Amino acid sequence: MWKAMEKIKIGILGYGNIARGVECAIAQNEDMELAAVFTRRDPETVKVMTAGVPVCRLEDVGQMEGKIDVMILCGGSATDLPEMGPKYAKMFHTVDSFDTHAKIPEYFAAVDAAAKESGHLSVISVGWDPGLFSLNRLYGEAFLPKGSHYTFWGKGVSQGHSDAVRRIPGVKNAIQYTIPVESAMEAARSGEQPELTTRQKHTRECFVVAEEGADLAEIERAIKTMPNYFSDYDTTVHFISEEELRRDHSKMPHGGFVIRSGETGQGNRHVIEYSLKLDSNAEFTASVLVCYARAAYRLAKTGETGARTVFDIAPGLLSGKSAEELRAQFL
Amino acid sequence: MWKAMEKIKIGILGYGNIARGVECAIAQNEDMELAAVFTRRDPETVKVMTAGVPVCRLEDVGQMEGKIDVMILCGGSATDLPEMGPKYAKMFHTVDSFDTHAKIPEYFAAVDAAAKESGHLSVISVGWDPGLFSLNRLYGEAFLPKGSHYTFWGKGVSQGHSDAVRRIPGVKNAIQYTIPVESAMEAARSGEQPELTTRQKHTRECFVVAEEGADLAEIERAIKTMPNYFSDYDTTVHFISEEELRRDHSKMPHGGFVIRSGETGQGNRHVIEYSLKLDSNAEFTASVLVCYARAAYRLAKTGETGARTVFDIAPGLLSGKSAEELRAQFL
Repeated sequence: MWKAMEKIKIGILGYGNIARGVECAIAQNEDMELAAVFTRRDPETVKVMTAGVPVCRLEDVGQMEGKIDVMILCGGSATDLPEMGPKYAKMFHTVDSFDTHAKIPEYFAAVDAAAKESGHLSVISVGWDPGLFSLNRLYGEAFLPKGSHYTFWGKGVSQGHSDAVRRIPGVKNAIQYTIPVESAMEAARSGEQPELTTRQKHTRECFVVAEEGADLAEIERAIKTMPNYFSDYDTTVHFISEEELRRDHSKMPHGGFVIRSGETGQGNRHVIEYSLKLDSNAEFTASVLVCYARAAYRLAKTGETGARTVFDIAPGLLSGKSAEELRAQFL
Repeated sequence: MWKAMEKIKIGILGYGNIARGVECAIAQNEDMELAAVFTRRDPETVKVMTAGVPVCRLEDVGQMEGKIDVMILCGGSATDLPEMGPKYAKMFHTVDSFDTHAKIPEYFAAVDAAAKESGHLSVISVGWDPGLFSLNRLYGEAFLPKGSHYTFWGKGVSQGHSDAVRRIPGVKNAIQYTIPVESAMEAARSGEQPELTTRQKHTRECFVVAEEGADLAEIERAIKTMPNYFSDYDTTVHFISEEELRRDHSKMPHGGFVIRSGETGQGNRHVIEYSLKLDSNAEFTASVLVCYARAAYRLAKTGETGARTVFDIAPGLLSGKSAEELRAQFL
């Protein structure tokens, strides 16, 4: 029988940076516990931080049906989640951080069908963008329908752009920072509702370790002209040593700003701004994931099934506090 | 029979600043229309902006049961809403901006009982504080449980403090600005999680029109030593003319900041900041109220009853867009 004090049993599927962040986040929330970690690797080679937690083969995940309250899918969006999302929504209530914005509608449909068919509840595309930034875009547009919104990212490391640089011949290692342009942010905050181009909003800065004897000018040209990733931006390229990269660029900070500017009545202007400044992108994303796991657990308990996004989750469901406590302390 | 394109019929009860803001906000949302305004005054003396909208006596409100989808209660929190909230929750789905933080639990209980008994749904304490700031306090604590939160108000006009100054003998008119202290905001944003006293966080600035022959030094002393309102703050008092007050202080700007600072993993620091810069406090509050009226309408359609707060409302319910549009455009 269910007891109120029983902890929410979280499973982690895939054990990379986000998963380690989830493990840290569970330790900060006393109503949850880590039940098991599932990996495609040899479980013997995976060391988790939490004492006594079993590391299991992904093939054995079926044996845990009913023993995990919510499974947090920690795979990547490019190839892992499109397959994992619908597959594991058939076996567990799930939460994931699918972040390929353009493919969200089809991913939602696939997970929704799988979850409904099997009576599970899945919250997709959780994190800060998509996630908290999405919420603030929605809130901003709802409260100030006559207005404009602006999303700025950074200063922070873009994994996708770093990977793109690393694929260039002659590049041994690289990291890319996305940097919001201060004057563009000021324009967005002014309430004037300016139109801002891609180039006006962000610059990109790359720190590149080249292979010995590589053509540096050619690498720089290849970066700056790369379509989609760099050609629409002003990009700066620095060549540094492997040691400098390790010493100065090993943290993964990120963050950004969502600014909504709008007008009411006879020309009264309002600006809503939401910002994040994160030392660790993965750990913060993971902290958001566990809150949505709590919400998934609660919604599933009431019999809801299918896919959900952050837009469908009442804020109170995210907190470990009761509705009474929330009203008394935070309202 | 209900048709999808039919507009949500909003009623306004009480016709002051917030009500006029609600009227403006309805005009910006094409899925709603203003059905009627109810007033305690002689309806002949109340001019509304929207053509063709009836202004009715409050005594006749009972005749409109069933003709109003959601009634927005635009009374004050001190004396109007404690009585109005439960009374009109028996007749309509309601939304209000009850903002006496300490009395929210008892107000919630009274409205909840009335709404449940009569099969209505009421969203209480909507606006920006309580309201959007409350949401951000909740979100911040959920995502960064090991952390501290800070609310700063201003720069803006506090109605309550302005009224308190106006009650001092010898004061003809006055306005009070609450001003956040920049260095305290910087400390909150630093991630150091400092403890900040009331005096460190805000200063207060009063612009006072004195009656002829009044003892200015005595007025200044009375303001600065007033318990609860001013004695815990550093306060500046300026004496100005009625004309200067009208010329320089007729707008009602406001705003503020909610900052959550917290830690994950091995000392990684994160800062979440939400801020509002509002030209018109009343119009922005009203814009938020109409979105929650939309949510109340939708929840009531599904048969939900009782009192709710912003914590109970899924973000997607606030927007005029469909769930599919929201996922495609904002996620």
